[in-house]
Amino acid sequence: MADINTVAQQFCKYYYDTFDGGRANLGPLYRPSSMLTFEGAPTMGDAAIVEKLAGLPFQSVIHRIATQDAQPLDNGILINVTGQLLIDGENNPQFFCQTFHLKPDSGSFYVQNDIFRLVYA
Amino acid sequence: MADINTVAQQFCKYYYDTFDGGRANLGPLYRPSSMLTFEGAPTMGDAAIVEKLAGLPFQSVIHRIATQDAQPLDNGILINVTGQLLIDGENNPQFFCQTFHLKPDSGSFYVQNDIFRLVYA
Repeated sequence: MADINTVAQQFCKYYYDTFDGGRANLGPLYRPSSMLTFEGAPTMGDAAIVEKLAGLPFQSVIHRIATQDAQPLDNGILINVTGQLLIDGENNPQFFCQTFHLKPDSGSFYVQNDIFRLVYA
Repeated sequence: MADINTVAQQFCKYYYDTFDGGRANLGPLYRPSSMLTFEGAPTMGDAAIVEKLAGLPFQSVIHRIATQDAQPLDNGILINVTGQLLIDGENNPQFFCQTFHLKPDSGSFYVQNDIFRLVYA
């Protein structure tokens, strides 16, 4: 397996670039078994997860990653990300943390677990 | 298995009560295979993890939990926690997020993965 820190960095860049560029395109990163808990609300399955993300009440968003930490988890990777969000051109960032559990599949990885929370300062 | 949200709540209460009451006593929650990434610094194994936590440069700490989200992960539980820290009686909280992967063992759970980060607002 490639170095997990390299995989984590590549995954995070791809994930947030795709999210910010057009989050309806995140579907291929999830599977029917995938779970998302977004601000405490649980969603299961790639189709429902993309519907949830695409329906969030903002037009544009920019993620700025502050930290990303990775650990091996069985055959997969656990990633914890912290950073800032800029919504719809606002200047005041919101802080967030997000946890991903990537599982291997056919030489690549998909998101099995995804937990997102804003951190209110 | 007990409801994962109940297990997650009980675990977080026990973990942070023990941390704040005497963090040198956290050892039984970890195993030789356990991994901690604390502010980007990796540590492996229960003994080294407890040494790392016990050696953090503060005397007293109070964790205030804001959110805790849990998902099933194989036979275990993934937990993401956000909250505030009060160090050595200070009044200005620091914000943190922490991710745990609990694995089952002999009818209980231990911490296999642990990633901690302060969130700077």
